[in-house]
Amino acid sequence: MGDVVKKLAILGSTGSIGQQTLEIVRALPHRFCVVGLAAGKNISLLAEQVDEFKPRFVHRFSTDSQDMHDDLPAGDYELLPLDDIACHPEVDIVVIATSGKSGLLPTLAAVRAGKKIALANKESLVMAGDIITSEARLTKAQILPIDSEHSAIWQCLQGETQNVAQLILTASGGPFRGYSPSQLAEVTPEQALKHPSWLMGRKVTIDSATLMNKGLEVIEAHWLFNMPFDNIKVLIHPQSIVHAMVEFADGAIKAQLGYPDMRLPIQYALSYPERIPNQQLPRLDWSNISSLTFEQPDFDTFPCLRLAIEAGKRGGTCAAVLCAADEAAVELFLSQRIRFVDIANLVEQALEQHQAIANPSLEEIMAADAWARDKVMQLAAGANPW
Amino acid sequence: MGDVVKKLAILGSTGSIGQQTLEIVRALPHRFCVVGLAAGKNISLLAEQVDEFKPRFVHRFSTDSQDMHDDLPAGDYELLPLDDIACHPEVDIVVIATSGKSGLLPTLAAVRAGKKIALANKESLVMAGDIITSEARLTKAQILPIDSEHSAIWQCLQGETQNVAQLILTASGGPFRGYSPSQLAEVTPEQALKHPSWLMGRKVTIDSATLMNKGLEVIEAHWLFNMPFDNIKVLIHPQSIVHAMVEFADGAIKAQLGYPDMRLPIQYALSYPERIPNQQLPRLDWSNISSLTFEQPDFDTFPCLRLAIEAGKRGGTCAAVLCAADEAAVELFLSQRIRFVDIANLVEQALEQHQAIANPSLEEIMAADAWARDKVMQLAAGANPW
Repeated sequence: MGDVVKKLAILGSTGSIGQQTLEIVRALPHRFCVVGLAAGKNISLLAEQVDEFKPRFVHRFSTDSQDMHDDLPAGDYELLPLDDIACHPEVDIVVIATSGKSGLLPTLAAVRAGKKIALANKESLVMAGDIITSEARLTKAQILPIDSEHSAIWQCLQGETQNVAQLILTASGGPFRGYSPSQLAEVTPEQALKHPSWLMGRKVTIDSATLMNKGLEVIEAHWLFNMPFDNIKVLIHPQSIVHAMVEFADGAIKAQLGYPDMRLPIQYALSYPERIPNQQLPRLDWSNISSLTFEQPDFDTFPCLRLAIEAGKRGGTCAAVLCAADEAAVELFLSQRIRFVDIANLVEQALEQHQAIANPSLEEIMAADAWARDKVMQLAAGANPW
Repeated sequence: MGDVVKKLAILGSTGSIGQQTLEIVRALPHRFCVVGLAAGKNISLLAEQVDEFKPRFVHRFSTDSQDMHDDLPAGDYELLPLDDIACHPEVDIVVIATSGKSGLLPTLAAVRAGKKIALANKESLVMAGDIITSEARLTKAQILPIDSEHSAIWQCLQGETQNVAQLILTASGGPFRGYSPSQLAEVTPEQALKHPSWLMGRKVTIDSATLMNKGLEVIEAHWLFNMPFDNIKVLIHPQSIVHAMVEFADGAIKAQLGYPDMRLPIQYALSYPERIPNQQLPRLDWSNISSLTFEQPDFDTFPCLRLAIEAGKRGGTCAAVLCAADEAAVELFLSQRIRFVDIANLVEQALEQHQAIANPSLEEIMAADAWARDKVMQLAAGANPW
């Protein structure tokens, strides 16, 4: 059987998505190989990955060392700038598994090179969805979503080219589902880091607790599927088994379900349009599932969801401000300098004070990002009564 | 906008599916028109339909009258034999909405003419699935399922051509879900005719209460989707909102959901591959859906499901015997000559006593059908202690 071995470059290989992508490669070595790895924070893990997967190209994000080879094993690989890896002709699929705004430039580079891009980084599309999707239309770059919700929508849309009535994103509701505002004021970073169903990085876990994560996903879905905000709904579904649904013009709904494990959407993005058997992936066992529950989101107690949708609708630089303000505020919460509920307060104030720019350039988006981070730090410093 | 108006022949137009098909035509007159109508039991309704839809061809199933025009309005239509309507070049889609084995011959005629066949009649595929699907492959006839479960599977398979791990058919469980065998012995036709979620004819409603209906659907799914019986599962889902699911090789599951209303799958079969907005069709309202529940079927209390799957696996004439024995037994139950639980007993005995023929001809299938009906009448007459 002449299966093509797809060559992957994984940007952010030591993070949660990066490591799970490498698990897929390990499980399916006849279908995927690694030609590029890039990471920053965990150099010893990157070194192990280089040793195991023998990529041709490696990049280390930031380093204080003069010698880029410092701590990396010797080997037959080239150290290349990030964008060069993202655009390299040897690379079939660029996996953008970095978190935060560091994903934006390599995503754009890959889009401009007309690559297939398996995108786990939310910030790229939230900050610069208009630029990325416009350029992708020109270059025919394919954006293959890795987020479980967007993967689910994408799967439901296969073979369905028209007449979508609405997209329904599900949300677990996070660890504080059902809390009152006063209960929420008291929660600690430790409590917020305990996500009920998904294993994720710290920033995403806090965003799941505030529902900001779902708000960012609404903005992503808007760009990925070219869908008006009013036709994107959020439904709380604590079991995290139904990942998303699509309602069509005739009232039929398709849902994608699966065990909550990021390796499933990661593998789908890599194997698309094929589906590959993988014994290591968990399967739903219907003898253990008695009930799937659904409820409407509480926009009052979790204002981040509302703020995100509003910022998405306002457009321009607003979503970049939302994103950056949230990142700064989450950091402040994790370092115990603000309360959980102040994340939303700070994001809201930053958005209120922001002078939005319509159709911004990349530079204007970056400037809005920097402005929002500064603004949140100022607001927190000024207002912090603790 | 150059929408094609599809020309329908509806065989069984006065039954539940036939009437609902006409509702779709009424709602979407720019997309569908009726060129053929056929019915038998309710001639006054057929007359109204002829008057309203002005078909070019009409057929009356059986009649005691010499004059076929008896009771039908005068008009510019031709009275044709059923098979001639099913094969007529003027017909784009043949809707087989008859119940029982009367659907088999027109289905075969339409298959042999290479037609598009919107198939609501279960018995055709259950009795002669091998013949129908083999001939359809030769003539390129397309079988478009109308049953909500098979429509759901078909919808989930759009854009997915390979690597299906299993099909999951849901069943409401019927009005006697959770009953003990002793409770079941006491139930009356009146109780059995109260289906919790679907509005259907009497025979199908009783079959839903015994789970025979789901068993017949498993056999249909086997033929429609060329799926081994061991890869078709049944899951009880009392809300009847998830109509079926498909699990793929990578563990991803797609489900099709919708309000339990037959007009949705009917319209999909007619509009396929398009989806057409239709304000008259009900939509799921997620603010009213708090929980979808699932449980394993109780094969001991509802043996018809097991009997059907076994008959399907044995193949040959067994499924025809199952089908005919069930139809005869349901009639006996509805006329209060046997108990509810005797439906399964009689079907089981007929299957045990049947000398199965492998790769049967149509004549052998018809003979097995007749044998099974006689056998059930004999068994019921001999064993009936009431």
